[in-house]
Amino acid sequence: MKDMSPLEELRHSASHVLATAVLRLYPETKLDIGPPTENGFYYDIDLDKKLDAADLEAIEAEMKKVIKENQKFERIECSREEAIEKIKAIGQERYKLGRLDDIPEGEQVSFYQNGEFIDLCGGSHVNYTKKIKAFKLLSIAGAYHRGDEKNKQLQRIYGTAFPSKDELADYLERLEQARARDHRKLGKELKLFHIDEAVGSGMVLWTPNGAVIRQELQNFIAEELQKTGYDQVFTPHIGKLGLYRTSGHFPYYKESQFPAIVEPGTVEELAKEGCTCAELSNRLDSGEIDGYLLKPMNCPMHIKVFDSQPHSYRDLPVRLAEFGTVYRWEQSGELNGMTRVRGFTQDDAHLFCTEDQIADEISGCLDLVKLVFNTLGMSDYRVRIGLRDPDSDKYTGDAEKWDKAEAALRDAAKTLGVNYSEEPGEAAFYGPKIDFVVKDVIGREWQLGTVQVDYNLPERFDLTYIGADNEKHRPVMIHRAPFGSMERFCGVLIEHFAGNFPTWLAPEQVRILPMNDDLVPQAREIEKLLKAAKIRVSVDAIADKLGAKIRKCHVEKVPNFLVLGKQEAEQGLVKVNSRANKNLEGLKKPQEFLTELLENIANKTLPDPKES
Amino acid sequence: MKDMSPLEELRHSASHVLATAVLRLYPETKLDIGPPTENGFYYDIDLDKKLDAADLEAIEAEMKKVIKENQKFERIECSREEAIEKIKAIGQERYKLGRLDDIPEGEQVSFYQNGEFIDLCGGSHVNYTKKIKAFKLLSIAGAYHRGDEKNKQLQRIYGTAFPSKDELADYLERLEQARARDHRKLGKELKLFHIDEAVGSGMVLWTPNGAVIRQELQNFIAEELQKTGYDQVFTPHIGKLGLYRTSGHFPYYKESQFPAIVEPGTVEELAKEGCTCAELSNRLDSGEIDGYLLKPMNCPMHIKVFDSQPHSYRDLPVRLAEFGTVYRWEQSGELNGMTRVRGFTQDDAHLFCTEDQIADEISGCLDLVKLVFNTLGMSDYRVRIGLRDPDSDKYTGDAEKWDKAEAALRDAAKTLGVNYSEEPGEAAFYGPKIDFVVKDVIGREWQLGTVQVDYNLPERFDLTYIGADNEKHRPVMIHRAPFGSMERFCGVLIEHFAGNFPTWLAPEQVRILPMNDDLVPQAREIEKLLKAAKIRVSVDAIADKLGAKIRKCHVEKVPNFLVLGKQEAEQGLVKVNSRANKNLEGLKKPQEFLTELLENIANKTLPDPKES
Repeated sequence: MKDMSPLEELRHSASHVLATAVLRLYPETKLDIGPPTENGFYYDIDLDKKLDAADLEAIEAEMKKVIKENQKFERIECSREEAIEKIKAIGQERYKLGRLDDIPEGEQVSFYQNGEFIDLCGGSHVNYTKKIKAFKLLSIAGAYHRGDEKNKQLQRIYGTAFPSKDELADYLERLEQARARDHRKLGKELKLFHIDEAVGSGMVLWTPNGAVIRQELQNFIAEELQKTGYDQVFTPHIGKLGLYRTSGHFPYYKESQFPAIVEPGTVEELAKEGCTCAELSNRLDSGEIDGYLLKPMNCPMHIKVFDSQPHSYRDLPVRLAEFGTVYRWEQSGELNGMTRVRGFTQDDAHLFCTEDQIADEISGCLDLVKLVFNTLGMSDYRVRIGLRDPDSDKYTGDAEKWDKAEAALRDAAKTLGVNYSEEPGEAAFYGPKIDFVVKDVIGREWQLGTVQVDYNLPERFDLTYIGADNEKHRPVMIHRAPFGSMERFCGVLIEHFAGNFPTWLAPEQVRILPMNDDLVPQAREIEKLLKAAKIRVSVDAIADKLGAKIRKCHVEKVPNFLVLGKQEAEQGLVKVNSRANKNLEGLKKPQEFLTELLENIANKTLPDPKES
Repeated sequence: MKDMSPLEELRHSASHVLATAVLRLYPETKLDIGPPTENGFYYDIDLDKKLDAADLEAIEAEMKKVIKENQKFERIECSREEAIEKIKAIGQERYKLGRLDDIPEGEQVSFYQNGEFIDLCGGSHVNYTKKIKAFKLLSIAGAYHRGDEKNKQLQRIYGTAFPSKDELADYLERLEQARARDHRKLGKELKLFHIDEAVGSGMVLWTPNGAVIRQELQNFIAEELQKTGYDQVFTPHIGKLGLYRTSGHFPYYKESQFPAIVEPGTVEELAKEGCTCAELSNRLDSGEIDGYLLKPMNCPMHIKVFDSQPHSYRDLPVRLAEFGTVYRWEQSGELNGMTRVRGFTQDDAHLFCTEDQIADEISGCLDLVKLVFNTLGMSDYRVRIGLRDPDSDKYTGDAEKWDKAEAALRDAAKTLGVNYSEEPGEAAFYGPKIDFVVKDVIGREWQLGTVQVDYNLPERFDLTYIGADNEKHRPVMIHRAPFGSMERFCGVLIEHFAGNFPTWLAPEQVRILPMNDDLVPQAREIEKLLKAAKIRVSVDAIADKLGAKIRKCHVEKVPNFLVLGKQEAEQGLVKVNSRANKNLEGLKKPQEFLTELLENIANKTLPDPKES
């Protein structure tokens, strides 16, 4: 019997009740499986009729009946032969016989029965259906039997259940919030980005509004990098296969990369020889034919920049930063808006330092990540330190180095003053790392920034510097990216702010609403004043009612808008409304507002917390 | 008889004198051809001995003898049959018989003779060898017969000749300057960029110093774009083949593109079927197999951004800008430092406008290009207007539209107040264009900025906007890039400034030179002051003589350096030296210098002209 938590038992039982109701309404249904999940449960069913929202309601109503009947969940243990007979008897051979085969030899086979419903099931369950006090069916989606595209597509009915109605309501509220904040939805509504099948799935086009946000974030980082002694570089998006052979990216990890690009004429030359695709592929892998790889990582390029000059220990650390766009292949089913894509821009940097500098450099990296998160109001985050598994020999570099680097990561994490957990065995094979896991305002966790120590690539590329002893030494590399990926980070940020960006990030920072046509020239004057100070501002000069104009500001999530009526205009004032920061509001001179606004922007002031 | 200018005649004769001398020294030499060129002349010779610099000197000495002999150039006309006999008689069948074949039927065949030397030649020449008063042999390079790699590689001897010794000296001086300014040489010395065979030929790695210059140039442009109502976008570096089929880039222009990237697994799938490379290539061309193209142009991406929203005439013009990196295949022989590369970043923008807006938009584009050139002290430029050939029908769009667009370009060029030439037949097939040809300080011309009108892509992508009449209309596109390519422009800029960049562009803007170790802390204080104002500053704290430190500033072309001696330090002053702008020099307070420097940077002040 499996060990389930009380909540899992509850949800598992709810999925049986779901199946009970489905069979009552559609007796021809063939059942596959119905487990509890992190946030609820589902049942995969094979039914010709395509279920819709109305059907879900009917099923839910039937489930309520089943619950009211207060059926008892009973466990029935039997032999495999008896199980086969039982499955045949209930007419569920289609999938259940296969599921029976999944049960390892020697393990007890069991069924669970509630009322007329009987299902092959390891358990466990609540005692009676009445224990299911609060549940809800949520959606239907297609799901291949055993997750394999070659199998039949079944209908998966999703639902959730909680011990109390309040907890269910809370969850549904959070779900509603998540839906309203969905960056794909907001991205479209606020014109932040566009994904076009003609360009390619998972390829993000940053439309003007989204590009403003990205550029502001990049400027923010770039300014910090300048302060802290980083150098910017720009590197190409393709590199020779040999470069990635040296780094170890090719021909390994092929399934997560775009295939190699051969030189023009190569395929034509090979075609003349009658070469087959198989040979082409083999010759590329073996290095017999040369080509290029769309870069999956920036590191080899930065290594080549570092290595373009000889280095003395006096030059170190060398910190090379780039907003570098990399390309990786993701299965189309994995793609999701901006958060799972095939091309993304890392706010990447590689630090080349001596052993002794690792601790300081890591500390500097963590400070930067912390600054980024705090500035964006993502103050709820934890840190995971990935350490090596001391019993494994898969790691590069000697034990002493590892101890030192791990201690450095641990010390740095401690001084951060946030929760951290150590996870032995979670280091990369080339070095230990720190990952930042950020909790957004509705409690979801996102893995964002990362800092990694690397002993491997300096070895592979034979990097050296001349030490104080006039001898060659091997530098250590640190990879770090506070945002991780601009695409992913912006996707999370859209959801975090529900599109209500702080003024410094807002694509349109201020809108001026003249109350009538006569006031448009004065509105234009104010616009000019703000524009000269590089404020992103517009005038809503369309002849419309003020109410409609204000509503538009709300819909388009403009953080500040100035109402310009006749009276205000005569007094040389504007009425400032701020969705972002109440302290900006009031009747004031445009110059006064501008001064306050510039301060708000310079401070990267976060939006006021919403009153509940 | 061909029509040559007196200068061409002179150089052409010099090339015959060169051949005369070569045959005297190496009678076994087989001659190919020896024409005048824009800046001199050459002769291609087939000789087993590989000539070196010492040999060139000997040849030059022999040429002087030939000139002193004051041989007369005599024209000998004859029939083709006689010509063949003559060529055989002088033992020059190897290449000259082929060159004889090149003379069109019916054209007079002729030889020119000076002293013992006789050569198949259409002329024309000076009368006597003594007319060649000032010449110089410059270099030897390999050159394939008829420029075809499949033919034998010959030795090409380059030289130049001028009517006077002064003119020759001037030219050699300019050549020397050009060599000293060579961006490949300076790029290495000043650590501006790096090209690494491991990454790929023609792929520029912008190392930290070069990246500063590029970023400053980008910031400059970005600021202007913001002022003039452009929107920034970011787009991917690959797009589906279908996108480039629609735009017309694929499968045409294949020889100038990197080949298509198929999806992962495609080649493996095809391999299973035993598919050949020829089939793969055909299926890609036909569209039977899908794939991606490394983007050769940004336009299709910007079109997709434009088209991601419906547009009303009120939204137009939409101006989308991006520093977009594109990839094109260049033959390896064509590659040259940063000026001919395989990956380059365009300061690209596409303007979507109505017919009526074309004139204003072009005018705005030209203003921007002009601003860029003037800001960088490239005030000597001309404009080429490429118009359609009125007798050809290869152009897209109707005549009336063309007339309007051409008139708009002409009017805009006029108001620029610079020289412009109209070149019928030089328009792109999709619209007329303006190219900017800039002359650098040593008189070389570079084609940089471009503004092009395009009726074709809006048609191909079926772009529309809703007009005031509530009907669909087709927008017009304008492509424009003031720098053209960041790589090319920076290459030219390095040569233009000979690495002596104005302070606003200089990677290191100020260096502080403390006279002894005790003054380092005070130097650090000044460094801190300047750094806080975002000045790129360093302290040369190495224990070395002041003279050596100053020499280093010169070699590394640091535009400003501050000498900090004991006396200055006590008075709280620094001695400012400026290689860039004399008016910054003098003994002053650090804060005073900073104020002046910030003004210099804000004004993008050009370096003082060098006294000669």
